Amino acid sequence: MGELRKDYFLDRWVIIASERGKRPHEFVQEQVKQKAGKCYFCPGSEDETPPEIFRIGAKNRWKMRVFPNKFAAVRQEGQASIKTDNIFYTFSANYGMHEVIVETNDHKKQLWDLAPKDIVDLISLYSMRIKELGKMNGIKYVQVFKNSGKEGGTSILHSHSQVIAYNKVPELVEQEAKAIKEFKEKMNICPYCCIINSEKDSFRRCFENRNFVAFAPYASRFPFEIWVLAKQHVKSITDLDNGQVKDLAEVMNSILKKLKKLNAPYNFMLHNSPAGEDFHFHIEILPRLATWAGFEFNGTIINTLPPEEAAKFYRGE
Amino acid sequence: MGELRKDYFLDRWVIIASERGKRPHEFVQEQVKQKAGKCYFCPGSEDETPPEIFRIGAKNRWKMRVFPNKFAAVRQEGQASIKTDNIFYTFSANYGMHEVIVETNDHKKQLWDLAPKDIVDLISLYSMRIKELGKMNGIKYVQVFKNSGKEGGTSILHSHSQVIAYNKVPELVEQEAKAIKEFKEKMNICPYCCIINSEKDSFRRCFENRNFVAFAPYASRFPFEIWVLAKQHVKSITDLDNGQVKDLAEVMNSILKKLKKLNAPYNFMLHNSPAGEDFHFHIEILPRLATWAGFEFNGTIINTLPPEEAAKFYRGE
Repeated sequence: MGELRKDYFLDRWVIIASERGKRPHEFVQEQVKQKAGKCYFCPGSEDETPPEIFRIGAKNRWKMRVFPNKFAAVRQEGQASIKTDNIFYTFSANYGMHEVIVETNDHKKQLWDLAPKDIVDLISLYSMRIKELGKMNGIKYVQVFKNSGKEGGTSILHSHSQVIAYNKVPELVEQEAKAIKEFKEKMNICPYCCIINSEKDSFRRCFENRNFVAFAPYASRFPFEIWVLAKQHVKSITDLDNGQVKDLAEVMNSILKKLKKLNAPYNFMLHNSPAGEDFHFHIEILPRLATWAGFEFNGTIINTLPPEEAAKFYRGE
Repeated sequence: MGELRKDYFLDRWVIIASERGKRPHEFVQEQVKQKAGKCYFCPGSEDETPPEIFRIGAKNRWKMRVFPNKFAAVRQEGQASIKTDNIFYTFSANYGMHEVIVETNDHKKQLWDLAPKDIVDLISLYSMRIKELGKMNGIKYVQVFKNSGKEGGTSILHSHSQVIAYNKVPELVEQEAKAIKEFKEKMNICPYCCIINSEKDSFRRCFENRNFVAFAPYASRFPFEIWVLAKQHVKSITDLDNGQVKDLAEVMNSILKKLKKLNAPYNFMLHNSPAGEDFHFHIEILPRLATWAGFEFNGTIINTLPPEEAAKFYRGE
């Protein structure tokens, strides 16, 4: 038996069709052999990336590096303001800043090989870029995300995150902010605060420490999808105190170690508050072990692994 | 220079970042070698599929076959009615029927190798299944779609389409129906009728005959995305007359031949009217030559090929 399920408060529907599915261990991916060739994210190629914006560590023994993306999706050119021609044609320049954060100097290490203290450093870079880029003219949102593995949409295997600051709030973040507002007006509480309370003791619970909780969401879009939420109602990763950052790094490390066991390609996206909105900071991690096809692109998503099974895998049961 | 663009009337945004992109011929995919092994969609294996629902041609010399999907995402079991527990948990059974339409008895042919008259036959099967399944208890929508190629989400290479009839209108179709309603209330005309008029003479025009038009949509989500629309305001593929069916088959054939040149994996989905709604029938074809990643899953989509370039490719310029 499967189920049709709706997201907690978005109009997003998923068919959980476990009878089509595989057991968790059957999702394990083969190791991809890296192509030989020069890596521009490696030490020694610093002069061949666009000029460095920030670095952790000494110039010749750096640990992490931030620089503009050479193949930027958005640029600081043209008009950031959005216009409409003849009703149907709404547009602006692809305005903004697109940066890369190289997470380690070691080509052979992935984020799941790094220690929690390294993830603390990475979080500090995320916060720094969000604060700095968020202040720039015309920027409405700073989106931090990571693509890992070929099916995760990356062509460069050297472990890195990306930052796109642009003239729009991402549609999903906007929908979430709207849903929070409507829910709070009715119930006088943030829906995510309620969901955390409900999920942290459910069959979908995965990890928990003093400040953070992680669970497989009720209407998971992907096998092994997992969300990490601050227990306190915090608007953005930039508002976390040191203890919270440490706890976030610890939970992220626990999740990534599990994804390493599957050798899973994945994406994750920070969900921070847009300026002036109330929001509940969280990170959504989407392993990419299934391909969306024709049915999914019209809306409803088929997921062959129930989140309750994914949670057992994360809990080590 | 690129652009941020919004869909004609949905809240769907795309960054057209052509400077990152490739020329059309650089998108050509390598031929995938088929794995050896038995194909259950081939002649001779008829007894090993679930019982046949319909067939074009003689039992031993059939041309097309319809049967239930052995690995169905939805089933005729449990409750089709949707319920909500504790505010956040909305669900039903994964209720419905999931069918396969094998499009040819020839394992080596793909839909793009078939003639327009074969596509006329396929359209007649689509219409028949939509009418029949749409009458069944608890069914709100009959979704017809095709997945082609590995990146298109299919594991079975023998050319086939799929039909999922279930207890929900797909979110995208629902959003479109809502937008049509709102637009018509304001402007007293269907927005798609306006868009056709505007696009069929634009730089995004691709194909046109007496009854159908095809163009690359203004905010294309994928390189080479193309939509096929009935020129007349027709609600569903089931309402087309013989002349319209012939013209639709001709345009689909022209598009598929172009996709064959790229050896492109692709999906297409029929957009028919939900019961009781007004709607403008169309087909959306999504070549899968790019991978959505972290940024896309938060909403805004990056597309590296402007639809104006895709249209040139379709027009043979």
